[in-house]
Amino acid sequence: MIIAVKQGANEEEIALFAEFLEKQGVKTNVSRGVLQTVIGLVGDTSAIDAEALSAHRLVEKVIRVQEPYKRANRKFHPDDTTISVMGADGIIRRIGGGFFAVMAGPCSVETPEQIADVAEQVKKAGALFLRGGAFKPRTSPYSFQGLGVDGLELLLQAKKTTGLPVVSELMDMGDLEFFGDVDIIQIGARNMQNFSMLKELGRLKKPVLLKRGYAATVTELLMAAEYIMAGGNDQVILCERGIRTFETYTRNTLDISAIPALKRQSHLPVVVDPSHAAGLSWMVEALSKAALAAGADGLIIEVHNNPEKALCDGEQSITPSAFASLMETLRQYAALENKIL
Amino acid sequence: MIIAVKQGANEEEIALFAEFLEKQGVKTNVSRGVLQTVIGLVGDTSAIDAEALSAHRLVEKVIRVQEPYKRANRKFHPDDTTISVMGADGIIRRIGGGFFAVMAGPCSVETPEQIADVAEQVKKAGALFLRGGAFKPRTSPYSFQGLGVDGLELLLQAKKTTGLPVVSELMDMGDLEFFGDVDIIQIGARNMQNFSMLKELGRLKKPVLLKRGYAATVTELLMAAEYIMAGGNDQVILCERGIRTFETYTRNTLDISAIPALKRQSHLPVVVDPSHAAGLSWMVEALSKAALAAGADGLIIEVHNNPEKALCDGEQSITPSAFASLMETLRQYAALENKIL
Amino acid sequence: MIIAVKQGANEEEIALFAEFLEKQGVKTNVSRGVLQTVIGLVGDTSAIDAEALSAHRLVEKVIRVQEPYKRANRKFHPDDTTISVMGADGIIRRIGGGFFAVMAGPCSVETPEQIADVAEQVKKAGALFLRGGAFKPRTSPYSFQGLGVDGLELLLQAKKTTGLPVVSELMDMGDLEFFGDVDIIQIGARNMQNFSMLKELGRLKKPVLLKRGYAATVTELLMAAEYIMAGGNDQVILCERGIRTFETYTRNTLDISAIPALKRQSHLPVVVDPSHAAGLSWMVEALSKAALAAGADGLIIEVHNNPEKALCDGEQSITPSAFASLMETLRQYAALENKIL
Amino acid sequence: MIIAVKQGANEEEIALFAEFLEKQGVKTNVSRGVLQTVIGLVGDTSAIDAEALSAHRLVEKVIRVQEPYKRANRKFHPDDTTISVMGADGIIRRIGGGFFAVMAGPCSVETPEQIADVAEQVKKAGALFLRGGAFKPRTSPYSFQGLGVDGLELLLQAKKTTGLPVVSELMDMGDLEFFGDVDIIQIGARNMQNFSMLKELGRLKKPVLLKRGYAATVTELLMAAEYIMAGGNDQVILCERGIRTFETYTRNTLDISAIPALKRQSHLPVVVDPSHAAGLSWMVEALSKAALAAGADGLIIEVHNNPEKALCDGEQSITPSAFASLMETLRQYAALENKIL
Repeated sequence: MIIAVKQGANEEEIALFAEFLEKQGVKTNVSRGVLQTVIGLVGDTSAIDAEALSAHRLVEKVIRVQEPYKRANRKFHPDDTTISVMGADGIIRRIGGGFFAVMAGPCSVETPEQIADVAEQVKKAGALFLRGGAFKPRTSPYSFQGLGVDGLELLLQAKKTTGLPVVSELMDMGDLEFFGDVDIIQIGARNMQNFSMLKELGRLKKPVLLKRGYAATVTELLMAAEYIMAGGNDQVILCERGIRTFETYTRNTLDISAIPALKRQSHLPVVVDPSHAAGLSWMVEALSKAALAAGADGLIIEVHNNPEKALCDGEQSITPSAFASLMETLRQYAALENKIL
Repeated sequence: MIIAVKQGANEEEIALFAEFLEKQGVKTNVSRGVLQTVIGLVGDTSAIDAEALSAHRLVEKVIRVQEPYKRANRKFHPDDTTISVMGADGIIRRIGGGFFAVMAGPCSVETPEQIADVAEQVKKAGALFLRGGAFKPRTSPYSFQGLGVDGLELLLQAKKTTGLPVVSELMDMGDLEFFGDVDIIQIGARNMQNFSMLKELGRLKKPVLLKRGYAATVTELLMAAEYIMAGGNDQVILCERGIRTFETYTRNTLDISAIPALKRQSHLPVVVDPSHAAGLSWMVEALSKAALAAGADGLIIEVHNNPEKALCDGEQSITPSAFASLMETLRQYAALENKIL
Repeated sequence: MIIAVKQGANEEEIALFAEFLEKQGVKTNVSRGVLQTVIGLVGDTSAIDAEALSAHRLVEKVIRVQEPYKRANRKFHPDDTTISVMGADGIIRRIGGGFFAVMAGPCSVETPEQIADVAEQVKKAGALFLRGGAFKPRTSPYSFQGLGVDGLELLLQAKKTTGLPVVSELMDMGDLEFFGDVDIIQIGARNMQNFSMLKELGRLKKPVLLKRGYAATVTELLMAAEYIMAGGNDQVILCERGIRTFETYTRNTLDISAIPALKRQSHLPVVVDPSHAAGLSWMVEALSKAALAAGADGLIIEVHNNPEKALCDGEQSITPSAFASLMETLRQYAALENKIL
Repeated sequence: MIIAVKQGANEEEIALFAEFLEKQGVKTNVSRGVLQTVIGLVGDTSAIDAEALSAHRLVEKVIRVQEPYKRANRKFHPDDTTISVMGADGIIRRIGGGFFAVMAGPCSVETPEQIADVAEQVKKAGALFLRGGAFKPRTSPYSFQGLGVDGLELLLQAKKTTGLPVVSELMDMGDLEFFGDVDIIQIGARNMQNFSMLKELGRLKKPVLLKRGYAATVTELLMAAEYIMAGGNDQVILCERGIRTFETYTRNTLDISAIPALKRQSHLPVVVDPSHAAGLSWMVEALSKAALAAGADGLIIEVHNNPEKALCDGEQSITPSAFASLMETLRQYAALENKIL
């Protein structure tokens, strides 16, 4: 961390300020220039609050050189993290570190037939995980809010039948008891900075799929992962799902650059959600291929056996047959990227 | 709600679709044009899921004419809502409906002396509410997270001493038990779409200060308020605190237009947080005056007796004397706006 | 300017790099720390290309401390700039430095009666300048593009009749010859970074009203002004007219913070265009008051005698009587701000 | 186009309004509902000004169903446009319609050796076009502005030597005379809505590479192309080069979804500029592959033989050897997409 000192500060003030900084556990290195004095902070600056420092009357600017996250940081963990999950069939599915995993299923679990049918078909097409929403975050209190516990039960039934591990969104830590058999807990974009929740997730022993908030920076996503990891849970899967911009053609703007950015800065697996990013089913294939080509470790895709009648987000769901065809295409791309799909 | 039907749909399909729509509790009105067929939905369309409809193969576009919120809507509640809160001194403070209220205090409660001192001074200057953070949402898990329950106690002590009602942020419904004597519960920007939380807040009998998410639209803020109101709690205060844009000179961009936009669409009081919006203490005065002039019903301002040593957000806090001077100025503006300050 | 050097760079490399930097006309000040070496650049760094430097293999980060503009910078010109324009009636109108000026008129000049009528009425209400578009930037090639030279003539006729100096947009330097009697040349948001045009404007001897690009930062607006000033034309009026964000309730988002930001960094007058910012006529009053309260030096407002029949932007125009009433209100606010209106 | 009429409008008013609309060359189709009256406009609505209509006192909302562009619209031109350019060697290069073309070269032409060397190397690696800037748009008036006409001459010399057709940016129509031998004229992001320029480009007989403004929507980019095409020049190549968002990790955010969006709506070729989008040389490869996978028709890439010493944008340039390796990779992806590279 580098602090540019305001013009006019005298020697004594600066010395006192440096002393104050050293009390926070770092070494300082003062460089006095004719017009500009600079203080370099050496050591672990991740606990130093750059914003608070900026308020000090001697400070012109504070510049972070070191990233503010540690456990999520590739510098301290150069190898890719691979997350392994065993399905009800005893088979282990992997994501990250060369393993490209596709998670697929309906936006929301609706009926036993629907989830069973979709599960069977996505498995056949090569999906490694079954996704399905039971608790649904909806902008309007008057919209369908998901089947809740009943939906989870249907999802877990499909897990038993197909063997596929399941992913489902947790919206309230109070519902955690129902997620015992859910294999990967999904945290939605709107809860990415629900810090109370992140702390509690740090105490779990199960993978968390952490979706990027739609106005969160790449660094903030990594800081959210750091919250979970700081609590002791290293199994975090990052998910890019589109950010909010001025463009309204797509529901959100898929930030394709976030993939290489996250992979460079962190060792955690990165998956992409092309369905929510665009909100347009016909765009899912193009974005899925692009995500793989840009270095993603997986995809989470909405598949519905009857998108027109879907109780939520039908506009962005593809059919099982479109999904099967997409998987065929992705296998060719995965081969080029030396990824196991 | 208006549905533009895709070209090529035949009479029978359209009739079946209209029937399907009517089952959702609205009347339909089909208008066949040479090139364009349009279906108008008449009745209460707030429960109709426009996005789900968009997935239907006959649908070209869905356009909402009616707002998707009801309880928060000025159309169904033309008069301004005034929220009244009695302090520990038995005096009632009002916000909305011609009453302009200023909430002031430190970003985070730090020591008994600090909160007592600030509380005394902001009261003297004319603040109607004391704000102070006990549970702090911080981007980094390694930053100071607030004093928690101890902080709340110090705040409540200051409430007793000064008589001022208090406002404090609730980050986790599990902490609600400690908020019994807190007069207004603040919900932070990052929890604006924590729908589980919003539903539980709907069951409370106390005012909620709901901050706009930093990437939430005005409509989404009103929908979040609708969640709380749909649960039975009508005492919602909306808070504009800056949105995230490409501009980095200020921490966020204060959306001054949101004030007239919210006041026109809703009867709920609107307050502005100039401290978090800009993140720059020297800008607080200009933005406070602008907010009042644009029609706001109040302000929530960070005041710290020693901004340089503040444990969080010092950069944006003003001193008690700057606050007193600001209040003087605001009184003149309030007079022009016929607001009681 | 401060350069954080990458870890692992050796003494010799750093010395050579410092030498290379000094050749660009600045002094360097190398501070070697255990983990971090920092080079401070002292002197006039406005010509140093921070981006180009960032590509150097020794560079971790480049941080500007000094602003990259000089002539527009308040540091080198502490007093407010006041721009004076004499009307056809021999009376001088002033803007900046305590003078608050309102420019008003139709989005586009349409007929002799329309411009004459509006001009007369806005003058009576207290406008100091008459605005009117002859060359119109339109998103669609099929929309009305303005009356061109004929429109300018009608505007200049109204100038003669009322005495008011006139403001009109120049879209193409090739049309400059027709602007001889136009008093202030307006450069639209879409041309803010038309650098060829900015350079040519630098050679003029007449005030330029420079609108902020709808995705330009405050710093980029000042750099655009610097282009004009570097050419020798110091008469630049900055105009905030809303930026593009994710919010769609208003056409653009008025960046109210840009007013204090610009006034602090620059000595140039700042005017606000509430009509284009919101795109909603009913919001013009609230935003105008807010702009004045936040420190603006003037306003540019669309007034049309028949907004419904306006050939462009009718939705955002107010009527002459609404304008007169707004001026009444603004006078009270100007008094509070000690501005001459 | 659909117009939702305000509640309370009477029959007669609506009839008069419909008449007024028909005078603008469309047929109307009025549908009176109990709560909502809707007017459908049938015919060519591209010349109807939706914004102006919105100001009418009878209008609640105006909704475009039909796109506002015609010549750029795939509906009226279902087949992909292929643009063919003959090099100095008599060989034709194609872009669009199954032909994937890579344009490569330095951000700015600096010396005869530099451009000759880069040109030779990118040709060898498989680039079909040589790009090089002579007139450079720079944010600061004090930055290197390009070699101008001398730079163009060096570029044209390299064209002769290698045979490659060349692409270079035109910033000022006054410089057009120097662009006689330039094969493709590039219009920068900052001039995308320089409507005077677009009109003049419509009179040229040569391909225009039109870069998307960094805050322009996909529709606005197509409208800008429409300006050129309406003038008679159909040879427009669209270029996605990143948009401005809140994310600062990359210089801009590459809008990967814009590729399928543009390809679906328009028949024009779409190229991607990964160098400017990210501003980070190490990210160029990932983004190039993603662009191809998402359906782009080409790439425009900055290549410099000594990025550290580049006079502009060195941070984003890759070396000739990195470029050669990238081309190898792209060939494999092009094969999967059935594109000729």
